[in-house]
Formats: sequence, C-alpha cells, structure tokens
Amino acid sequence: MTQQLYQQTIELRGHIVDSLILPQLMDGIMDLGGNYEVEEFELGRNKTEPSYCRMRIIATTDRILMDALLVAQRLGAVILSDADAKFEPVPRDGVFPLDFYATTNLQTHIRINGVWLPVDKTEMDCGIIYDAEKGTAECIPMTKVKKGDLLAVGHSGIRLEVLERERQREIFGFMNSAVSSEKPKELAISGLVEEIKHVKARGGKILLVGGPAIAHTGSAKYVSRLIEMGFVDVLFAGNALGVHDIETALYGTSLGVSLSSGLNAEHGHQHHLKAINTIRYYGSIAQAVEQGVLKSGIMYTCTKHNIPFVLCGSIRDDGPLPEVITDVLVAQDVMREHLEGVEITLMVSTMLHSIAVGNLLPARVRLVCVDINPTVVTKLADRGSNQALGIVTDVESFLGELYRQLSGNNGN
Amino acid sequence: MTQQLYQQTIELRGHIVDSLILPQLMDGIMDLGGNYEVEEFELGRNKTEPSYCRMRIIATTDRILMDALLVAQRLGAVILSDADAKFEPVPRDGVFPLDFYATTNLQTHIRINGVWLPVDKTEMDCGIIYDAEKGTAECIPMTKVKKGDLLAVGHSGIRLEVLERERQREIFGFMNSAVSSEKPKELAISGLVEEIKHVKARGGKILLVGGPAIAHTGSAKYVSRLIEMGFVDVLFAGNALGVHDIETALYGTSLGVSLSSGLNAEHGHQHHLKAINTIRYYGSIAQAVEQGVLKSGIMYTCTKHNIPFVLCGSIRDDGPLPEVITDVLVAQDVMREHLEGVEITLMVSTMLHSIAVGNLLPARVRLVCVDINPTVVTKLADRGSNQALGIVTDVESFLGELYRQLSGNNGN
Amino acid sequence: MTQQLYQQTIELRGHIVDSLILPQLMDGIMDLGGNYEVEEFELGRNKTEPSYCRMRIIATTDRILMDALLVAQRLGAVILSDADAKFEPVPRDGVFPLDFYATTNLQTHIRINGVWLPVDKTEMDCGIIYDAEKGTAECIPMTKVKKGDLLAVGHSGIRLEVLERERQREIFGFMNSAVSSEKPKELAISGLVEEIKHVKARGGKILLVGGPAIAHTGSAKYVSRLIEMGFVDVLFAGNALGVHDIETALYGTSLGVSLSSGLNAEHGHQHHLKAINTIRYYGSIAQAVEQGVLKSGIMYTCTKHNIPFVLCGSIRDDGPLPEVITDVLVAQDVMREHLEGVEITLMVSTMLHSIAVGNLLPARVRLVCVDINPTVVTKLADRGSNQALGIVTDVESFLGELYRQLSGNNGN
Amino acid sequence: MTQQLYQQTIELRGHIVDSLILPQLMDGIMDLGGNYEVEEFELGRNKTEPSYCRMRIIATTDRILMDALLVAQRLGAVILSDADAKFEPVPRDGVFPLDFYATTNLQTHIRINGVWLPVDKTEMDCGIIYDAEKGTAECIPMTKVKKGDLLAVGHSGIRLEVLERERQREIFGFMNSAVSSEKPKELAISGLVEEIKHVKARGGKILLVGGPAIAHTGSAKYVSRLIEMGFVDVLFAGNALGVHDIETALYGTSLGVSLSSGLNAEHGHQHHLKAINTIRYYGSIAQAVEQGVLKSGIMYTCTKHNIPFVLCGSIRDDGPLPEVITDVLVAQDVMREHLEGVEITLMVSTMLHSIAVGNLLPARVRLVCVDINPTVVTKLADRGSNQALGIVTDVESFLGELYRQLSGNNGN
Repeated sequence: MTQQLYQQTIELRGHIVDSLILPQLMDGIMDLGGNYEVEEFELGRNKTEPSYCRMRIIATTDRILMDALLVAQRLGAVILSDADAKFEPVPRDGVFPLDFYATTNLQTHIRINGVWLPVDKTEMDCGIIYDAEKGTAECIPMTKVKKGDLLAVGHSGIRLEVLERERQREIFGFMNSAVSSEKPKELAISGLVEEIKHVKARGGKILLVGGPAIAHTGSAKYVSRLIEMGFVDVLFAGNALGVHDIETALYGTSLGVSLSSGLNAEHGHQHHLKAINTIRYYGSIAQAVEQGVLKSGIMYTCTKHNIPFVLCGSIRDDGPLPEVITDVLVAQDVMREHLEGVEITLMVSTMLHSIAVGNLLPARVRLVCVDINPTVVTKLADRGSNQALGIVTDVESFLGELYRQLSGNNGN
Repeated sequence: MTQQLYQQTIELRGHIVDSLILPQLMDGIMDLGGNYEVEEFELGRNKTEPSYCRMRIIATTDRILMDALLVAQRLGAVILSDADAKFEPVPRDGVFPLDFYATTNLQTHIRINGVWLPVDKTEMDCGIIYDAEKGTAECIPMTKVKKGDLLAVGHSGIRLEVLERERQREIFGFMNSAVSSEKPKELAISGLVEEIKHVKARGGKILLVGGPAIAHTGSAKYVSRLIEMGFVDVLFAGNALGVHDIETALYGTSLGVSLSSGLNAEHGHQHHLKAINTIRYYGSIAQAVEQGVLKSGIMYTCTKHNIPFVLCGSIRDDGPLPEVITDVLVAQDVMREHLEGVEITLMVSTMLHSIAVGNLLPARVRLVCVDINPTVVTKLADRGSNQALGIVTDVESFLGELYRQLSGNNGN
Repeated sequence: MTQQLYQQTIELRGHIVDSLILPQLMDGIMDLGGNYEVEEFELGRNKTEPSYCRMRIIATTDRILMDALLVAQRLGAVILSDADAKFEPVPRDGVFPLDFYATTNLQTHIRINGVWLPVDKTEMDCGIIYDAEKGTAECIPMTKVKKGDLLAVGHSGIRLEVLERERQREIFGFMNSAVSSEKPKELAISGLVEEIKHVKARGGKILLVGGPAIAHTGSAKYVSRLIEMGFVDVLFAGNALGVHDIETALYGTSLGVSLSSGLNAEHGHQHHLKAINTIRYYGSIAQAVEQGVLKSGIMYTCTKHNIPFVLCGSIRDDGPLPEVITDVLVAQDVMREHLEGVEITLMVSTMLHSIAVGNLLPARVRLVCVDINPTVVTKLADRGSNQALGIVTDVESFLGELYRQLSGNNGN
Repeated sequence: MTQQLYQQTIELRGHIVDSLILPQLMDGIMDLGGNYEVEEFELGRNKTEPSYCRMRIIATTDRILMDALLVAQRLGAVILSDADAKFEPVPRDGVFPLDFYATTNLQTHIRINGVWLPVDKTEMDCGIIYDAEKGTAECIPMTKVKKGDLLAVGHSGIRLEVLERERQREIFGFMNSAVSSEKPKELAISGLVEEIKHVKARGGKILLVGGPAIAHTGSAKYVSRLIEMGFVDVLFAGNALGVHDIETALYGTSLGVSLSSGLNAEHGHQHHLKAINTIRYYGSIAQAVEQGVLKSGIMYTCTKHNIPFVLCGSIRDDGPLPEVITDVLVAQDVMREHLEGVEITLMVSTMLHSIAVGNLLPARVRLVCVDINPTVVTKLADRGSNQALGIVTDVESFLGELYRQLSGNNGN
C-alpha cells in the first residue's frame, strides 16, 4: 500500500539558528504531525554570518502541509516555486471570503505576477485587500470590506518579514523573558529614557495609553509634565482616566479619595459624576478649558499643547464625557488614524486599552507595558504583541522615575 | 468672637449598633470635621430589640453640614423637620442640573408634599427624574435626560433604605470580609446552590455574566448544562466569550489552543477570526444554528433554549460577531431591560463586564463574583457593590463544582 | 421545662461605639449563639466624651459563656465580680497545662489577690507564667516552660488593654482598610517619614525586616544609606538577603543577574555559592570586612556601623552564611532579645520573616508592610497584627522614595 | 598590535537544534562577548536523525573562555582534548576550595584517568567530592565537607547529561511555557493521573510537599484518601500543615475557621495552640494516635499507614509539634534521605517548602507545582527546577479533582 505524500520546499535565510527560527519551524512541523528533509544547510560560521536552510516539508494530508506552510511563512520562509497570491471577491459587506488569509502584525508582501508587492497598513487579524487598478495592497478589518472587494485567500504568494532578534543588546530585549518585580527597574527605565530620546530626536512619535490609576495615584502631574516637555505625542485612554483627571482638577479627589490627604471623602462618590456633568454642561473639554473652568491635569495639558487624545468608550462607563467615542468600532478607526509615525507605545495600568492598542499596532512599534500585576504584562505578550518591555511596578513609581530621568532631576 | 454653627437633627432606627450604622455615622461626621450631640439614645436591650438614636449634627460651614447629612442619608437616617425634595429643570439634553442628587444603588424615597414616594429603577450614579403629572419618580442616566425634565437637586426630602446586616447567617454574609483562596470553597458553593434553588423556586431570575476564560478552560460545557437545567435566565458577555465559544464549536480550539490536547494549534491563531467570519457569513448566530453550522456550545444552547443574551462591544474586539452591540451606551440600555426580576448575578472571570453590571444593579440583587485574581473581587466591592460573595478560584473549578452540586452529581 | 442559663456581667468604657468595640461584642456574642441584656448604657454625647456600657451576657451552656467572655476580654471588657486569675503547674517541660490561657499581642493584666498585675514581654500565642515570689508575670513560649512553672489557666482575672482607634488621623490609620496599589503612595511614605523622625527623636528604635528582593532590585544601596543616616537600628533577615547582598558586593550580581546591565550572567549561578563559601572561608562577615574582602553592601554597612543583625535560617537555604542561626527556635529567641525598644518595624518584601516577626511583636509596635503582592499584606493583617500600614509597591520604588524623603533629596 | 585569543573546541550531539541547545550555546557565547567558529555541522535530515556540531569557542580573555565553556558544559557539550577533572583539598571543615565546581541538578560525570565516572547523589549547588580509594564521586553540600576532602575545582573533565526535549508529547511538556489559569486544567490533571499510575505501576515513589492551605480549605480529606489509596509515599511539610490538620481533627477548625460552617470561631484563635499543646502533652503524634486522641486527618492517616513524613521548622512556627525538626540543616538532611526512589513530586500551596525541595531534587524527578498564585510557579521554575508542570488553581479544586480522577469517581 502506498501513501500519497504532500510536499513543498521552502527556504530560510538569516540568523535562523540563534534567533530560534529554525528550531521553531522544526518544532511546528512535528507538532502538526508532519516531517521534513533538510536538503541544504549552511550554518553561519561565526556570529556575523547568516545561515541558510532549504528544506522539504512532507505531510500525509494537504491540511497538515497547509498548516506547516503557514508556520513556515510566519517564520519568514519563502515557499519555493511559489505561485502568485490568490484572491476572491468579498461575498457581502463586512464578510471575508471563507478562505481568507488572516494577517499578522509583521510586514507582509504578496506576489502579483511574480513581483513582491508590500502590503500597507500592517495590522493583525485583518484581511489583505488588493486594488488591481492602483496596484496596491493593504490590511483591512473585516467590518470594512465591501461586496466585490478582492481579498487574498489561502497562503500562496505571501511572504512575511520576521524580526530577527537583535544581536546588539538593547532595552527592548532586556527583560523579554521575565517581567519580574524582582529585577532592577531603574536600569529598565534608564534604557527606556535613552530610547525615547532617540525616537524624539529622529522625529518619531510616542503614544501613551493610560488607565485611571494614573489619576488615583496622583501621578497625573507627571504625565502633564511629560506632555509639556514634549515626550507624549498622542494619548489613548478611556472615559475613566479623563473623568478622574478632571475630578482631580475640579475637586482635588480621584474616585472620591483626596489626593492631598489620602482619605475617602464621603461625598466624593459624587465628584466624578459632577465632573462629567460639568464638562457636559460646558459642552466639551476644550470649552471648559477656554471658559477657565478646567485649569490643570492631563486633559487640560493636552488641550493647551494641542496633543490629540482619543477617549474610547467602554461598557462600564459612567456619563460619559462628551469626547468619549461610544461606538467601539468607530473608536478603533480613530485610533488607527493616530498610529501613523508612532514608534514607542507606553501602556500604563490599563489592560483593556493595552490589548486593544496592541491588536492595532504593527510589530515594529515598541511597546512598554507597565502594570503592578504581572499577569497583565504576560497576557499582553500572549496575545501576539512582541517587542514588548514589561515592567512590573506601580504606576506612580514608574511615572515618577520616568519624569525624574527625562527631566534630568533624578534625585539620587 | 462668635462662630456661626450649622445644625440639623437626624433620626436612626434599627440594629444601628451591630449593623455598624451608628459607628459609621459618628466616624463620617468626624472625618468631615463636624461634631454631634446625641439627644436621645436607646440601645436595644437584647439582640432582637431595635435601637433608636436622635442626634444633632453640628458643623462650622454649610458645606460640612451638607456632606454630613449626605453621609447620614446614605446610612438610612431621616432628617427631622425635613422639607420636600427639590427639583430643577434639565438645562439641556444629556446634562443634569449642576446641583443634581446622585443616586446610590439603595431603594430610595423622595418627599413630595409631605409624602414619601418610592423611586423606581434603582441604579447607582444616576439622577432622579420626577414626573409631576403621573406622580412617579425614577432613576435616570445622565445621557437620557431631556431639556426641561425635572431632576432632584440637593439632598433634602430624600431617604434611603439601608440594608441591615442580617442576623441570620447566610451565604452572602459568609466570606464578606475575606475573599481568600484559603477558605473552604465547597461550603461557599453549596450555600450558593441552596440560594439558587430558592430563587428559582420563587420564580426569580439568574443572570450569568461571563468572560472568555469560560471557553479557554473548556468550561463552556458546564454553562451549557446549567442553561439546559434552567439555572441561567439571561447571559451578559462580550464578543470574546461568544467568539471563543463558537470557535470551540467549529474548530475544537479556544484562542487556538486545542481543548482536547491542550496544545497550541499553530494555525489556531486564525480560528477565532474564521469563527467570526463564518457567523457573519450566515448573518447571525441564530441563522448559523438553524443552518446546522453551529451545533454546540453556550451560544448554541442559549439559542436553542431561548435564553436571551447581550453581547457588549469593547475596544479590543476582533470582528465582531453580528450580535455584538458596538455602542456602549446602547449596550447599557439593553442590559438594563434584562435586569428586571434578576435576583442573583453570577460574575465569572470578567472584570470589565462585572463592574459594568455591578454599576447597573440595585443593592438588593445578590452578586457572586468568581475570579482567580483576588484584586478583581476586591475592586468590585470597592466600587460600591455590596451584598457580594467573592470566591477566589479558577473558573473551571467553580463551574464544574457548581454543575456537580446543582445536578446532584457531586462525585465525592 | 426550665433551662439553666449561664450569665456574667461585664463592663466596657471608652470610645466603644465609634471604635467598633461594642458592635463587635454584640456580634461576637450572637455568632456564638449567646444573648445579652444591656443593663446600662451611656453614649458619649459628642466626639470627645467616652461611652459606658454594662451588659449581662447570657448563654445556654457554660462553653458558650466562656467563649463569649473571651470575646469580651479581647475587646477590653472587665468581668464584674471577677475572681483572681487561676494557675496550674506545667505538667512537663515544654508543655502548657491543658486549659492554659493563650495570650494576645495586647498589653495584659492578671488579677492577683484583687490587684491587677501587668504581664511583661507581651507576645501573642504564649502562656502567662506567674512568679509568686517575685510577684511578676510574663508571657512565655510553650517550648520554654519547665515542669512545675505556674501558668494562667481559664480566663478569669485577666484584662486586656484594647487599642482604641485614634481620633486624630495619622499615617497608620491611613490605608487601613485598603492596601491598594491604586492609592497615592507618596503620601503614605511622607507620613511614614514623619513618624520615623518622631520615633528617632524620642530615642525609639527602628527594625528593618528585609527579603532578598532588596538585593535583586539593586536597592541594597538605599538600605546602606538609611543605615548610615541612622534610620535602621536592627536588621532581621534570612540567609538569602545576606548572601545576595554579599554576592553584589563581590561580583556585581544578585542571583547571577548583573545589577549594572540587568543581564543574566550565565556563570552567575555560581556567584551566590561562591559568595557564601568566601565568607565561610574567612570565618565570618566581620572577618571578611576586616580583611578587606567585603567592602560594600548592607552587611558591610551593618558591620561598620555596629548595627546588630539576625539572620534566621530557613529550609530552602543554600550554604548558609556562618552567621545564620539554623535552629529556628534559637533564632526566635535571638529576635526577641532585639525587640526591646523597637517602635516601628519596616517589613520589606519578605512574607516569611514578616509573619515571624509579626508573631513576636506586641500590638503597640507599628508595622509597615511593603510588598508588590497585595496578598502578603492582607495575610499579615489576617494573622493578627494590627496597627499595620500596608503599601503595595515594589521594593525598589519604596526604598528609593523613602531614602529620597529621609535625606531631603526628593528630586521632584 | 596583536591580541591573544583564548580558544577551545567542543562537540555537541543529539537533537541540538530543535531542543534549542545549539541556539542557547551561540547565544550564551555572544552574551559573554565571545565568538565561535563552526568547524563542522551536520543537521539531522529529518526529525529522527540527530545533529552534530563541532565548534571552536574564541575569547579575548581566559575568564570569558572559562565562562563560555561552563555554558557549553551545562548544555551537554564535551570539551575536546579534555583533561581529567581537577581536585583540591577542603581548606577547613564546611568550606569548599575557593575554585570549587558548583553542581547542577543534571546527571554529571567526571573524568578520572581518561574514564568518565558518574557522580552520585545528584543535587544542585553542591560540590563534587571524589573518593580515590573507592573510586566514587558524589555531590556534597558545603556544610558537610571535612578538611582534606578532595573536591572538584575548575571545570575541566566534567560532563553533564542534558535532558533533551522529548519529541513525544507528554504531560510534563504540556504547559511548560505557560502556567496560566486560562488553560483547561482537567486535561493537565488527567495527564498527571496517567503519569502517577505509571510511576506507581513500576514501583516509583510519589512525594507530596504540602502547605497549610490544604487544611484551611478542608482538603485534608482528599490527601487522607490519596494516602489510603497508596498514591502518597512520603510527605514533606512544615509545622503549619501538621498543626492545622490536627486542629481540624480535634476541633473541626483550621486557623480558627470552622470547616463545617465557614465562620470564624472567635475562640478559634486558641485552637491551633491547644492542638500543639495536646500533641506535646501526649509526647508525639504517634502517641496521640495510639491513645485514641487523634482520630482523623493527614497526620493520623500517615501514622496509620506508615507513610513517613518530615516536618521542617520555620522561623514563623508556633509551638512547634514535637516531630518538627527545628534545625533547618538537619531537616534538609532528613529530606535528602527520603528522596531515594521519588519520581514525582507534588508541590501544593507552599512556596517555601517547594523551593527547598526543588533545590534538593535531581532534574530527572518530575515536579508538579500547584498554586493559585502564578508567581509562585514562575519563581520555582526561575530557580532552576525544570521538568515542572505548573497548574494555577486553588488547592481545594486540584486535590478534589485529583482524588476524583484517581478514584475513578469523576462525577461528570
């Protein structure tokens, strides 16, 4: 009895051994129940030489072969004798063809008539729409496709650029396997400070994604100063950060806790609602600033310094503030518009918004995820956002230290 | 030099000492910088007799007095020689009068022409709208008021019904001060099982608020069985639970992890997107069930048993499923509609939705909050939801044990 | 049918309502299935007047009455018509009489011939030994009693001094109900700094109980400076802090992680063992300092400044260092000797030693418990240590900020 | 100017690519600042063929070369033209030679006259003592060496057997990268149950290391049943588990909390002390069992079934029980004696004892670490214990499910 075997040859180049690309490929193939034959292999003789591997993937079913090729593709392999990418029309608005290709957050190319065309607007979990007239391709979310759009299907003719682990040690490789609170944090922050300065020097943008603990811990003052110093180019948050920041500006409390005494003000329960209502009364944050009602805090500083902010609605919101975008699909779109040029994203004490933003970002943007709960950082990494620096600490300590180091006032 | 003093006399009745009401009042007044004179006090001579206290609250400013009265009010005090409630018209759509009274989740009455009128639709952080023609009052969220509506302002003529701590020990008093994982959980669950049976016996409804860990841990099967047995009357969740439940039904994975082998399927990354796209392709979950595409899982069982579900959108959603309500204010409204008759709310592994639902629920509804992270349970309680039973455990253990006990199949 | 009732009259004085003493007593009696008759009650008419309560406790069994009296006693009640304390001889070395009275960490008096005699060496979970000749009584651990010693039994003739909640707000009441990381930490630390300065000004001692995360996070430098500035009078730790502090001094690493680069030194695994062996080679830490081998770090600074330290052995120790006391009962005794005069205990990142020290300390000593894990702080409080200020943050942030504030170099 | 280079050639064989051995070696060399030249490399052509690599390690200092060789050695490399192992005499009792070789938990061989001799009593962080007369070598802790003993120094002539990652998936590879509570736990436990049965079938021993949460959660009954069914061969614990288990047997409480009602018994504070005193009164646990005083629980069941237990003292112990070994070095020795033949170690809710035991165990013994706190599991892995299966859940759920599955009474 003979058994039909499904086979395909692929090629890998680069630091594929020490970047763990080759081991992951072998492992992935075997996990799927496939096998491989190494046809050619050259190990870089020293740490600067790249390696090369040509390998035939062998499987007993077409499904296993397809899955194995998908693994290979995600690791940057080129499928030899590869055909062009294939496309199918969208069956109806907001629905991908059933066999759609789901994107990663890596830079992607598709092969059209033998030529590799880069795919724009890199984003995870999208489809690839191809405009034959313009000769362009880009990532597109499911909800935005229109009937008849051409979407990439299957996986032939698609190539990803894998980020090789950088040999030169840098801060984003620093704690990559361990987000422990038992490592020296000052080092991580001083490395981050260097990175922030480089990014700003070359005109890159820094995005801050922040949660309400920034206000609760009295750390809004640090964020305001970072904005004033030019280290925040855009702010994403939820209603809660906006509300409690404004509550602090109007009443000196956050969620009813006085930031000057640390005590619960009994009547403080109402402060955040009154703060929301006050802004709604004046019509907008900008109006409240202009009218002299709102005179300090993060939202005030953003307004004064023309730093754009996006406040995304969530199901638990009170109010909300007039600027809050209550439709989450609209909010995602507005965030996408502001991601252009962002090179570093600081995610501070907000699991919800961190995951949301992590989903939208291409892999080349660096993430710094700060939370006192190690699970949050781990979870973010689990969801596919690499290039992340996790720091397990409390928001007040992080922002205070970041401010001290960026302002050259480090107090030690 | 004489100093003007602001004074008001209040009355408290009931088990005000052992329910900690009187101590909290004294404490609150002193925290605010006020003082008090006890005019009359009768301590219940034994454990069944109620106590009575008449006390004059004294303050050096009107603000302190107002705040102290607010504290008293929230503890159930009646302000003697109290005037009627006061109202002001809404200045413009979606804005409360600046001095609006912010509601708690306690049953509230307002005094109209000397008569105490109950306020319907008890909900925290709302205003009280009064319809003079119909002679009715109800809680209303900020976004829903229309210009000219009459809203209660200040705090005179408002009385709250405080829940006294029940003498008779019951499950919801069980672990109220401690949500430790180091207490026997089986006891808590068996108490909960009794409570669920009582509620169902008298026709009460049970609401399940669930997060995607239900699917990830393979516990969807327990929820399906609880639905089949009639122990879930309505389900609130986000896109994620719906998606991963359907992913499991279609592909046997949750977030790409095989539930039968526990291994990561490399291609599994796409499964949740394919699951969403499949449902979008058929138009709805109900259609996918009808077409025989979706054949198991929580969403399937809800559909088959006509159990209503509300899927609330969030900023981190992929897709989403067609049933997801992407505008969070709309989603809040739909949830409000389904809360009628709910007596127990089980909140399982979802901080976001638990807080959202906690904000909407009156204090009389019992909450059971289950999470492996003690912080989540604490946070929920911190936000003003009392009557909560917190159980620190993993979702799979909780749902498995709940199922075993409710089905009489406890395996021990 | 008549039922015999067991009764006893008790008296309570002070701020027994707002300090929750009376409610706790009522509650405790009812939890036990007992009842009470309030015979006389005078509520302090304002916030400065004390209250008075005389109450008859009624029970259906002697056991319930005894338990209820124990509750009353722990709340500071005096049992009227109280008899003298009763004593029984120790049956054999290291064994208490079976009905021994177990101590709390509150200041205790026992009645001898109608006179209340203070009990020395206040410590929880001990017995009370009475020396009739000298007319003295003191707390004594179980392991230290000798056959024939007189130990207090039952609970008559015993009175505790309950710490009333202080009206005047101070730092140790600051976060007493919440150890959240979402509160402003700077405030808590500045309050602590004031308290530390007061204690030092009046000649009180400060005890630091520290875990190895101090070394791992590179925070040993802050502790060294605090010692140099005179803010640490005695240090308790385990082998691990000593070892990793010395590892840092000798190799620049802690648990093999370089504190200047943050990277794992592969060979670093051996560093802590080599550090231990080096000290053992020189015979002691003091010898290594004298020989010029150990030139920096906490252990070095303690040695140079004659600050006593106690290194307690634990079952997971490598080595250990020569100074480590490997017998835990001996180590407890040595710690007891150093507790004299201690007014503030800083417990930093060490659950094991914090609980150990918490068990030894009288309630009058203030505890500051710092850990990134909220559970640790909660656990410490659960074990009976009151007067604790919990700060949920990472050790590096806490020690850095404490140093900055105590040195007047706060960098903001 | 010429620079002297330090070089050494090493060899690696086996599944060195997909087991990540080669990438780790390259990485380690580069982290140290070294370089390498691959002299020969053969990649196994398919998943069953081993690979081979001969590589020259090049460094600019002898220290870097030595460190790089250490890395290579820990990855199983053989140093070509390797010399025999070198030895130096112990300078004084309890002190290793300064250049001692620190052991790993991997099976080790040393080269004596060109022959590789296996090193017995594999244990991490020890030295290797060589008995030239008997021709034997074994691991020995620092405290046990005597002046003049011959200890291995440097690293020549030492070879480790690295555990290759097993191709055939099994339970101990199951969750190795993720100890999340969001994975299906039932699967992990059913895999563990299979493994336990295999181990018992071939006569292997199972060690349970348990913390007091077993008693607090009412799970002692499950442990008793597991002992009765023959699935526990030896028990390691601290005083606390023993005490609270006995407290439950004598008073129905654990740490004063009633296991039948879940309520705090006010007088319960004394129960654990009374339990300790009772056992001390009878002289030992065995005596208390014999006298009919102790009639249930884990300690009772161990005694009745002749299951040896080791109770290790810790600095926070009350009492302790007579069986507690209060000197931690003695306790470590007694534990070592009981490790012979152990193949699976279940570590349940005790970080302290889990780390202690983890330090003593050779790498071939499988660990299952169960804790509700993910940090504990991570920490254990961080300390060098591989081959660990981490399960993040509460102890009651784990032991209940383990019992149900092992008894075939799984209730689903």
